[in-house]
Amino acid sequence: MTLYFEDLKPGRVFRSGPVTVDPAEVEDFARRYDPQDFHLDAAAGAASVFGSLVASGWQTAAYSMRMLASSELRTIVNGLVGLQIDKLMWHQPVKPGDVLNAEFDVMSRKQSRSKPGFGVVQLAWRTFNQQGELVMSLENAIWVAVREPATN
Amino acid sequence: MTLYFEDLKPGRVFRSGPVTVDPAEVEDFARRYDPQDFHLDAAAGAASVFGSLVASGWQTAAYSMRMLASSELRTIVNGLVGLQIDKLMWHQPVKPGDVLNAEFDVMSRKQSRSKPGFGVVQLAWRTFNQQGELVMSLENAIWVAVREPATN
Repeated sequence: MTLYFEDLKPGRVFRSGPVTVDPAEVEDFARRYDPQDFHLDAAAGAASVFGSLVASGWQTAAYSMRMLASSELRTIVNGLVGLQIDKLMWHQPVKPGDVLNAEFDVMSRKQSRSKPGFGVVQLAWRTFNQQGELVMSLENAIWVAVREPATN
Repeated sequence: MTLYFEDLKPGRVFRSGPVTVDPAEVEDFARRYDPQDFHLDAAAGAASVFGSLVASGWQTAAYSMRMLASSELRTIVNGLVGLQIDKLMWHQPVKPGDVLNAEFDVMSRKQSRSKPGFGVVQLAWRTFNQQGELVMSLENAIWVAVREPATN
């Protein structure tokens, strides 16, 4: 199955997960992209505003992208092409060993005026931990091809 | 030197870079977090809406975080603690071998009412490639301790 703009009706929900937050991957991500003590060292984490070793917030976003790319939305005809992110909030710290799940809701959509074969679809991402707590949420505009472009 | 809320005056600019977009790191990031063909395969990239193999947009954000964490802003007393991201836009694709630089501007700030020892500082991030083209921009609220909390 291939998803087009027409298939992404507001209200439709896509679910994905689980993903386990691998301790070695947390360390690897932190060393490469966010080398702060509270992402790398247990004692520094305990002394930080977080109170424990925590994953980089950008890694939580990356794990959520992994879940998006393994959800049914991976079948969008032109791939998952992000245009913009808004209201990205980190609600709870994510720790090594946490288990994440995600929901992606279609909020709204609009065909492009300048490129009639495409439209912009607004998704709401919500990522939860194994306690069901919301750890991250965001709004994401993606670029999706239309199955049957208007001819006028 | 250690930076506090008082030091982050609106208009102050912090610069960082360069960072080279390593082809092996692009592949590693894509396999782990964004396993789409146009991030992994040159021919699939050429046939995609991007017209070439491109890095995941989330990796551009991660590289920008690396530049933030190696800028003078790394000396913020409580570390770089992000609360929210808005208006994240991917303006141009980032390709393996590109060389990125970044600017971080203090846009505004506000002391917390509920936690008098802290404030929220709004940063604008702008990431550029080796041609000076803007590839990504965003607005980021961070949590910063106050040097001298008000006593009333």
